[in-house]
Formats: sequence, structure tokens, C-alpha cells
Amino acid sequence: MLILGIDPGLATIGFGLVAKNGDKYRAIEYGAITTAPKQIIEKRLDDIFTDMMDILQRYKPDCMAIEELFFNNNTTTAIDVAMARGVILLAAHKCGVDVYEYTPLEVKSSVVGYGRAEKQQVQYMVKLMLNLKETPKPDDTADALALALCHGTRMSAIPIK
Amino acid sequence: MLILGIDPGLATIGFGLVAKNGDKYRAIEYGAITTAPKQIIEKRLDDIFTDMMDILQRYKPDCMAIEELFFNNNTTTAIDVAMARGVILLAAHKCGVDVYEYTPLEVKSSVVGYGRAEKQQVQYMVKLMLNLKETPKPDDTADALALALCHGTRMSAIPIK
Repeated sequence: MLILGIDPGLATIGFGLVAKNGDKYRAIEYGAITTAPKQIIEKRLDDIFTDMMDILQRYKPDCMAIEELFFNNNTTTAIDVAMARGVILLAAHKCGVDVYEYTPLEVKSSVVGYGRAEKQQVQYMVKLMLNLKETPKPDDTADALALALCHGTRMSAIPIK
Repeated sequence: MLILGIDPGLATIGFGLVAKNGDKYRAIEYGAITTAPKQIIEKRLDDIFTDMMDILQRYKPDCMAIEELFFNNNTTTAIDVAMARGVILLAAHKCGVDVYEYTPLEVKSSVVGYGRAEKQQVQYMVKLMLNLKETPKPDDTADALALALCHGTRMSAIPIK
């Protein structure tokens, strides 16, 4: 099974493609889509949509795991992230890819085993589980891989009848 | 000049196409895009995108006037509306249509002449300015026409050098 993890944003969107084989995980590709802050928002959303379609069509993942959006103090940023998230979900639907949402707490619980884990602990586990030489950068990319791993471990936990 | 007014939402998206000729306004088409709450969010966003592309390609408006998004107490709804707004802006960019944003206060000031006007006063002015027999329904449609009229009056206010 090929899982696409997505850490949504407007300026930086982390992505990570993880192949799951039994309880083994392998990173196929990972990185970040970035958009230029000086561009108008419509152009930035179009760039995100185009890059997402490109990733989805090139790798044909079986599913997408994306971070659930919550509100913080910076509501302007939250609106921007939500708009970007809208075009990411649109791209997934256009490519027939099922979407699963996880909270940061669920991701930490699944990957580190502790919902209040620090960012460094998550990054360490991502590196370990995927046998990477270095911690993926930027943080958004590591978070995207963690989302893919979270979905993978949660899928395994579903009891077979 | 043909102006497309959009009142964004996830369940109901009001739209209104207004032709401006000097200081005369004429409603070309108006209505609402609706999505089914029982559908998954990805499908609803895709439906909005598809309908928006259809309107933009059929009528080829010169510009789009859309309501600026603010946060209220219902943050879940605000996230949904922001995601829908993202795919609406994406459609506008795909069709090369420039987007202008207005706050509810700006719309009321432009259309009624008073920023704290009641909804009924806005609807009355929309009906009057467009010479309509009845108030457009649902409210989202009347709001979309008000946004188009707001943009039209604001354009006229730009001084000619």
C-alpha cells in the first residue's frame, strides 16, 4: 500500500510517500511544495493544486493522510491554510484518492506512542521507522511522513474479522 | 463590464452576474450552487469547483467580487467555508478572472449607504438597483448580487486622471 502524507499550508506543504508492506515502511519520495508570498492568493492556490495533481498522478497513492485543521490564535493564517487544504482535497478527489484525517495528537500517539511528544521525538521516530540517514527537512516534510506512518499503523490496528 | 458576485459557503454558494453599463446595472443570471451535506467533503468541494468552472466558462465575467472571510464563533463552519473559498479562487484563477474582496461592511456601505444596514435593506436595494420583480432567494443569492453591485459602484468611484 502506498500512503501519501500531507502537512497542509499555504507557503509550505509537506508531502511524504510511504510504501507499507506488512509492518515494514519505506519512504518512496518526500519533500515540500512551496509558494511565493508575493504572489496573489489565487496563483498560490493554483500552484498548490497543480503540484498536488502532479504528485498524485505520478505516484498514484492508494490513500492520503492529512492533518486535521484546528484554530489557533492566528486566524488569518488558519483561513489561508484552510483554503490551501480545500484545493488539496479537491486534487485528491479528482484523482480518486481516499482521504483520512488525523489530529497532531493521533499522529504523535501512533508514531511515538505518546500524544504529547515533542517535535524532535516525532522526527527521530520518522527517521528510525523509515531508516533514513538524516531527518527530513523542512519540518513540514517530516510531519507529512509522520502522517503517512500514522495512517499505516492505524490501518494495521483494524482487526481482521 | 460583467461582474460575478460570489457569497462563499460549503452547503450554499450564492452567485450573481451583473452587467454594468455606466451607472446602469442589469442582472444577467443569478442563483445558488448547493452541495449535499451527506456527501464527503472532497466530493462537495469538487462539485463547487465544477459548477464554478461552468459559470465562469459560460458567462466569461470580467471580474469576480467575493466576500472576505472572517471568523465567528463557529470555527468548524469557518474552516469549511474557507476550504470552499479556496476552490472558488482556484476556479477564478484557472479562468483568468481577477478577484476583488469586500467585507460585509463595505458591501452594505456601497449598496445601502450605511455599513450597519439590515439584511432586508440590502435585499431591497438589490431589487431596486437591478429592477427585479422579487427579492432573489436564497439570501446567499441576494448577497452575491449585492457583492457584484458593490464592486460596480466602487469601480465607478475610481477617479479618472
